Amino acid sequence: MPLVVVGSVALDSVETPEAKRENVLGGSAVYFSLAARFFTRVRLVGVVGEDWPAEHTKLLEDSGVDVSGLSVVPGAKTFRWRGRYLPNMNDRETLEVQLNVMEQFDPVLPEEHRRCRFLFLANGSTRMQLRVLEQCVGPNLTVADTMDHWIRTEPQELRTLLQRIDGLVLNDFEATLLAEEQNLIRAGRKILEMGPNFVVIKKGEHGAMFFSRHEMYVLPAYPTADVIDPTGAGDSFAGGMMGYLAEQTEFSPEDLKTAMAYGIVVASFTVEDFSVYRLLKIRRQDIDARLDAYRKMLTF
Amino acid sequence: MPLVVVGSVALDSVETPEAKRENVLGGSAVYFSLAARFFTRVRLVGVVGEDWPAEHTKLLEDSGVDVSGLSVVPGAKTFRWRGRYLPNMNDRETLEVQLNVMEQFDPVLPEEHRRCRFLFLANGSTRMQLRVLEQCVGPNLTVADTMDHWIRTEPQELRTLLQRIDGLVLNDFEATLLAEEQNLIRAGRKILEMGPNFVVIKKGEHGAMFFSRHEMYVLPAYPTADVIDPTGAGDSFAGGMMGYLAEQTEFSPEDLKTAMAYGIVVASFTVEDFSVYRLLKIRRQDIDARLDAYRKMLTF
Repeated sequence: MPLVVVGSVALDSVETPEAKRENVLGGSAVYFSLAARFFTRVRLVGVVGEDWPAEHTKLLEDSGVDVSGLSVVPGAKTFRWRGRYLPNMNDRETLEVQLNVMEQFDPVLPEEHRRCRFLFLANGSTRMQLRVLEQCVGPNLTVADTMDHWIRTEPQELRTLLQRIDGLVLNDFEATLLAEEQNLIRAGRKILEMGPNFVVIKKGEHGAMFFSRHEMYVLPAYPTADVIDPTGAGDSFAGGMMGYLAEQTEFSPEDLKTAMAYGIVVASFTVEDFSVYRLLKIRRQDIDARLDAYRKMLTF
Repeated sequence: MPLVVVGSVALDSVETPEAKRENVLGGSAVYFSLAARFFTRVRLVGVVGEDWPAEHTKLLEDSGVDVSGLSVVPGAKTFRWRGRYLPNMNDRETLEVQLNVMEQFDPVLPEEHRRCRFLFLANGSTRMQLRVLEQCVGPNLTVADTMDHWIRTEPQELRTLLQRIDGLVLNDFEATLLAEEQNLIRAGRKILEMGPNFVVIKKGEHGAMFFSRHEMYVLPAYPTADVIDPTGAGDSFAGGMMGYLAEQTEFSPEDLKTAMAYGIVVASFTVEDFSVYRLLKIRRQDIDARLDAYRKMLTF
């Protein structure tokens, strides 16, 4: 089933202890789309400025992503993020954020997108996420991401959103901030009480935790010796997870856990090169082979 | 098969954001013994001072631990450690260390202990670990722990030790220090090249990594909502792991992975109360039940 993702489309500048890249393709909706397209058709909704290289749009199209929901604002500039990774390659500092077109991002979904059964609300303001949700006609599964900035500045809107979505995906720091609780297990349970049917806490190199009314579990990250650039790992995780779910007819606890595992495996590819380069080089069978290795790793 | 552990026996003072305990039973050899005794007979080798409460020796004896190798030095004081946990309950600061009797700890193993087939060299100086090793008559399996202090102050001795043991167990920070490498996967592989047949990197609340010539994997910690005191988790992990291995006739990769899982599960009990209290309340069937839940958690 097709999957709609609404989120940022960016030009990233990334520094690691080993190398740096300027103005490379990035953004939550881009990483998500390129991860999810291994599993299902993806419709990206986002906004860019006049400075957006046409080759990036072509790259997304050539990868099978529907970019009819990507709008270009004349006279405006694309969202830009600049960050630097610490030597552990897990922690990072944001050096600069230029919101540019993202500041006014308030998408009107094309008719076809509104009837989509799977919706992922990637990075963006909670108000925008709520307005997107209102445009959709009863999706089967709605999952949202959020960030520290929105937890701090739009707490009321976030409370409302949490009661209207099926799942929330956020990182460990954001979970402790939202739940006001340092223990991640208690934090996850507290967020669950705020409304969603499931919560996923992403722990970077330490994997991800899943919470629902009936179960809670932790899965480790797939171990990767060659971490080149962790940017987009979390969005790729969500893309792999939602992409797999969009292939299923129901969402059993087993399906959700397998979806988590696929998300973890896809993210492990993303970090093996800068930007989306690694995601462009792999095929579905590479993902399935690594999923088998991952399953074997966890069997005793 | 009986298992000999040589290491610290301590009186710990622990502060957490919630509570504090003064002079409670602790030490690497104590946690190790009380974890391993669920699986096999354990012979503890350690030293204490005149201030050592006799009830602690009785507690160890009542728990089935052979304490014939525990010596009391007249006129001396027991090793003491004081630490405080940060609100995340994973990181801690050491507030005070009184080495006392541990400063001169140079055990002479009883004859029966020297023929032991399983040996664990817990926290203590590398020189002492080497001298213990020389007293043993061809153990089947020797595993050692080490700490940042010994990595910094006895690097040559540690190089020698690493060529004489089967396995090394250390935490993530110590691994990056020893390997001079921030990526834990590369760090583990580098340590493997220093001599041991396998290396285990303990990641606290994030689980543990295993490295051998033929495989590398990560297992997550068993998720625990009620972390009361993480002290001794690493030593309990080693106790559960070695205890299980001492029950086996060979050490296949499958046995080693199951041993890792047992170590993780035993450690998850240890953190549920101060000192060794939780370990004293559980039985082997509690461990096996949690191992089943852990296996189920990792199956998809």
